[in-house]
Order: sequence, then C-alpha cells, then structure tokens
Amino acid sequence: MKRICIIGSTGSIGRTTLQVTKWLSGMFKVVGLACNRNWMIMAEQVIEYAPEVVAIRDKEASEKLVKLVGEDFKLMTGDEGIMEVATLPDVDLVVIAVVGSAGLRPTIEAIKAGKTVALANKESLVMAGDIIMELAEERGVRILPVDSEHSAIFQCLEGRDIGELDKIVLTASGGPFLNLSKNEIEKATLENALNHPQWRMGKKVSIDSATLFNKGLEVIEAHHLFGIPYEKIDVVIHPQSIVHSLIKLVDSSYIAQLAPSDMAIPIQYALTYPQRYESRSADYEMYEFNNLEFIKPDTEKFPCLEIAIEAGKQGGLCPTVVSVADEVAVNAFIEDKLGFRYIPIVLEKAIENIECGRITDILDIFEKEEETRNFVTSLIKGGLK
Amino acid sequence: MKRICIIGSTGSIGRTTLQVTKWLSGMFKVVGLACNRNWMIMAEQVIEYAPEVVAIRDKEASEKLVKLVGEDFKLMTGDEGIMEVATLPDVDLVVIAVVGSAGLRPTIEAIKAGKTVALANKESLVMAGDIIMELAEERGVRILPVDSEHSAIFQCLEGRDIGELDKIVLTASGGPFLNLSKNEIEKATLENALNHPQWRMGKKVSIDSATLFNKGLEVIEAHHLFGIPYEKIDVVIHPQSIVHSLIKLVDSSYIAQLAPSDMAIPIQYALTYPQRYESRSADYEMYEFNNLEFIKPDTEKFPCLEIAIEAGKQGGLCPTVVSVADEVAVNAFIEDKLGFRYIPIVLEKAIENIECGRITDILDIFEKEEETRNFVTSLIKGGLK
Repeated sequence: MKRICIIGSTGSIGRTTLQVTKWLSGMFKVVGLACNRNWMIMAEQVIEYAPEVVAIRDKEASEKLVKLVGEDFKLMTGDEGIMEVATLPDVDLVVIAVVGSAGLRPTIEAIKAGKTVALANKESLVMAGDIIMELAEERGVRILPVDSEHSAIFQCLEGRDIGELDKIVLTASGGPFLNLSKNEIEKATLENALNHPQWRMGKKVSIDSATLFNKGLEVIEAHHLFGIPYEKIDVVIHPQSIVHSLIKLVDSSYIAQLAPSDMAIPIQYALTYPQRYESRSADYEMYEFNNLEFIKPDTEKFPCLEIAIEAGKQGGLCPTVVSVADEVAVNAFIEDKLGFRYIPIVLEKAIENIECGRITDILDIFEKEEETRNFVTSLIKGGLK
Repeated sequence: MKRICIIGSTGSIGRTTLQVTKWLSGMFKVVGLACNRNWMIMAEQVIEYAPEVVAIRDKEASEKLVKLVGEDFKLMTGDEGIMEVATLPDVDLVVIAVVGSAGLRPTIEAIKAGKTVALANKESLVMAGDIIMELAEERGVRILPVDSEHSAIFQCLEGRDIGELDKIVLTASGGPFLNLSKNEIEKATLENALNHPQWRMGKKVSIDSATLFNKGLEVIEAHHLFGIPYEKIDVVIHPQSIVHSLIKLVDSSYIAQLAPSDMAIPIQYALTYPQRYESRSADYEMYEFNNLEFIKPDTEKFPCLEIAIEAGKQGGLCPTVVSVADEVAVNAFIEDKLGFRYIPIVLEKAIENIECGRITDILDIFEKEEETRNFVTSLIKGGLK
C-alpha cells in the first residue's frame, strides 16, 4: 500500500487525485491532506478518506473544520502545517496540487525529505526549476509529472535512450481564440476567455490557455523536468486535445501519447508509476478520435507564448518575473481592470523594468515575486503608464 | 560493423535496404545478396555493394549476371544457393525481403543458423507463425519487423511491460476504394485498384490493400510476432498513413508511432536496432500532418479483412489456404481473368473446400500451398463453378 499526502487536496487536481485513490481501493492510504482554507471541501475529504494529518493554512478555517467534523486527526495550521504534511515520515508519495508560488516550498521540502513527488504545480519548476531538479538528483528523488502534456512526454520517453531523441513537441489546444483574428482576440471579454473548448479548468489556467502563456510555462517546465534544451522543445496547436504531446526521434519518427481529455489518467499514472492500472475514465476507441489537426502556433496572435519561452531561456529570476506578472495581469483581467490585449504588454513591461538576476537562494524568488507583484499592480493601477 | 545478407535484394524492400546501408556508411558490410532472377538489378548491386556471396535462383539469369560483371564473388544458384546466403557464417543480420511463400524456408534456415532476422516477408509468419516463433525462441533469435505497421507496434511496445497492454491497433490506409460504395467497389478495374493513395507498392500488395486482405494478413503476423491473442488486435482505417499503428494501454492511453510514408524509416530501425540513427528520409514537422482521420473498417464493403482474420483464428493450415487462394485470385484479377468482386468469393470457396488441418511439418505448408493453388486455378478457370 502506497502512503500518500496531497498538498492542495481541495482544488481540482487534489479532488481528482482522491477520486483515483478511491477507484484503486486498497492500493493507497491517504495519510495527510493540506489546503489553504477551503474547510467545507476538506470536511468532506476528512470524512471520506480519514487522513491521519490535516493542515489548513488559514487558522480560522481550521477551527470551522473542527467544529464540523471533530478532531479525529492531527490538525495543523499555517505554512508550518503545510510543510509538515509535505514531509511526514512513512509517506511514499507527495502530490503537490497547489496552484501558484505557494507550491514551491512544499515541493522543495518534500524532496529534501526524500519523498517521491507527483508534481502538478507549474510554478515550482517555472520559478525554481534548476534548484528543484538539482535537489531531486542529489536526494535521488523522482519527480513525476501530473500535467497531461508532461505525463505524455514522460510516457513516450519511458524506456528510451535519450540519445534517440531529436526533440519534444508539446501540444496546445489553442484555446478559445484559435480561429479569431488578432483584432477580435484583443477585444476578448472574460466570458469569451473562459470558454475553453476542451478542458474545464480554473479561471487563471483558462485565461493562460487563451493567451497560450500557459504553454510557454509548460515549455519551461519540460526544459527542467526532462533536462532538454529550449531549442529542442516545440509547441504545436492541436485543437482536439487528444494527442497530449509527442517526442520526435532522430530518424524522423514521432512517438505520441493519446487519451481522452481527462486528468484522472495522468494523475493515476503518476500515482501508480512504474505500474499502470486500468482506469475508470471514459474509454475511447481510435475511430472516435477524428480529424486530428496540428497547426503551427501564430506568435503574432499569441505573443505571450514567446514571451514566456524567452523568459525561460533568460533563466534566473526571469521566469519568476514573467509568471508573477502574468498572475497579476490575469487577475486584473478577471476583475475587469485590464483589457485582454494588455496582458502581453504587462509582461513585457515587467521584464523590461525589473532586474532578473541569478537565483542564489530560494528567498530571492519570493522577494522577486513581491517586487513584481507590486510593480505590476501599480502599473495596472496607473493605467499602464 | 554489422555484417548483413539480403534475401530478395532486387525487390522494393531489398533495394531500400541497400540504400539505407549506403546512407549509414561504415556501419554495415553487405556480405551476401540473393534474388530470384533479376540479374540486371543484381548486376548494379554487385558493382555498388561488392558482396562476397551472390545467389540467383534462376541458373540462366546467373549466367547473364556473370557475363555482365564477372565473378568477383562466390556465385550460387537454386534454392540451395538462397539457403546458403541465408545462413552464411559471420553474418549478424539476415533481411528477408522476398515476397510470397518463397520467404518461408530462408526465414527458417536463418533462424536455425542463429541469425537475427529482419522480416519483411508476410507469408513466413502468416503460414508458419507458430513454427517460426517457437524456433526463434528456442534459438534465442530476435525477429525484427520491417513492415511499417509492425515496426510501429514494436517501437511502441519497446521498454514496456506486456501487462500494461490492453490491445494493439493496426492502422490501414483503407486503400483506393475507401470512399466508394459496395457497388462501385465490385466493379473496380485493375487501374482503379493500383491507384493507392499513400504508398507506391507492387501490384499484389496494392490490390491486397484495396481489398483490405493485406491488413488481415498483418493481423495474423502481429498475433505471432507479439504473441497477442486475436481479440486484442484491432484494425482502424487511417487514410493519411501517418500513424503507422498504436498500442492501447490498460488505462485508456494510446501510444502511437507516426512518420512519413517512407519504408526507409522502419527498414533502418530494423537494421540499426537497438540503436536508432538519423534518417535521410524526408523530415516532417507535426503541423505538416493534418486532419488525421480514424475510421472503423466497413466489413460489408471489405469482406476480405475478416476472412483473413478468421483464417488466422482457425490456425493450422487455414492461413496458408487463404493466403495462397488470395495470391492466385489477385493474379487472375491482374490478368483480367477475374472480377474484383470475386476475390472474396474465391477465398471463401477455398476455405470451404480445402481441409485445413494442423501443421506437423513445414512440408505440410508447401503441400497445402500446391493443393490450394490447383484448386483455385481450376475454380477460376471453371468460372467459379
């Protein structure tokens, strides 16, 4: 029985992870759950999965949880509580399902504690890829991708000599604006941007899909996760989201992983790796996958893709700056304080104006995060002047 | 340096194999070449590749060869000559590129001699799959597929535990008649049938593609080559011939191999396996592969597919009967002695009328071959009465 903890159990990935452990009953013991403050969902999870340890970052929320379900588990709060769940002894696998830079510390602590990490948090690798991968190598810890694209690459590379690889090709759905003109895209409303054709996701990720910024971050993640130079990572638009990514081999062959658009599949593979088990996901026959298209991304229409990749190539604190700038800009767009067309402009201004030095310590990242957040917030407040 | 022999060097696969050895110069020494009687092409090959041993089955043709290029090599004729090239000492890899049941003996002899076999001959596995795979296991010999579909499956399975496999899915282009009605197909002319949309191939194979009989034989081959039961082998029509085949894993994921329609790629992989090298084939980017379709095969329109698979399931001499019946029927169609619509009828009559027992010895196959050839020839002569 694999003993697992989930950091960010009340979010979309966290909930699907628990669902998968239920399907594969008897294979997993959910030892610890951690979340920010969603005590309502945590209460349900506590009842259903009976974890030994629960951490809720928000103290007030933790009190509400206890009032509702009692305290038949070890309860902790604050960042320390989260870190404790990420490093519990006798735990084999820690799933990092937190969104945003909050995922950084638990990822690092779990690796330091020698846990296998199933990583669904983008920011960890985007902001601190070098540190994390170095640490993982040092501790002999495996980082298993949860993202459908990275899981696909991981599955295609499995058992292959890296010398066979020509490049990796990440697929992108292209988002809801794929077939709009540049002019139409620039006028996009929140409702338009949230209308993703393939995946149901959180608002932030949906908007990052609409700008393709998301795919730029995935390129940075792939670079770190697989140790592949940026020149060997391509992006191709594949609106049907069936081919989750491909690798190209030196003899011009491609190996692809295809599956229905269901996060339960890559999550399950990360949980059961190196084994693979039957899934309760919808089953598909090949003839149900039809008219699979592959299109070169239009960087004129979607400038955020290249902005993100360029930040990745610059390295150091650059990905942090661009990632945080995007977070602030997207939130402003969601709150109707920024037009869609200004998102790439905000990113560029952040990169231009904020110094992106090297990372000497993890604290540099959090400092740069705050600096960027302040800069971009006042930039937007000031009407981008 | 890998020392190789090619049985059937003057055919399409044989010529491409030699081309690949030239591209990868320094990696291969072409030790022996064998063909049936095409002394003109053999002469060119002798000059270019300087083999140590040459076998031409036809004695007269061998004399013409010597007249043209001298005899700076060991020359042999007859079936014994072919077998000698298939079993030469100090040879690592024997490519069996012969078409028809003539491939059977050299395949068996090469395996007996402990050679790794790159197998492009369909009939070997169709007619004698059990014998060949048993022999290969006994001698610890690897059989490497050359066919693009089987190479794709082989590449997708590579490094994977067989327990992960749900089924394999062979792709079929669907041939030139994919979008015709049953009525239109039945009236097809030779010219129509040879007009294959994706591959340039010999006449026999082109017509077998038009009836989908070819894909039925490939199902039988896959069954033997990968040791997978028939219930776990599917066929899907994929008119673009870019996805060369797929495997489906137990968690509803598919792994696919994609490549341009160029036999040089799977041939090269068989030659260089377990390594993979750059190919001189046309290079493709994913966005050049467009609108990939996957369609359920229409067994009403293409009855030969199921007839072949059914024969495979029956086993024993059944695949021999159906395969030889098809060969005779297709040749009659090529010679305008049989209408296209009668091909499946001939196959069914052969199966009905010829006893398909077990194979106790390889000679049983040759006897059944002759019996079938005689039966079908007179059947066609007699106007299918």
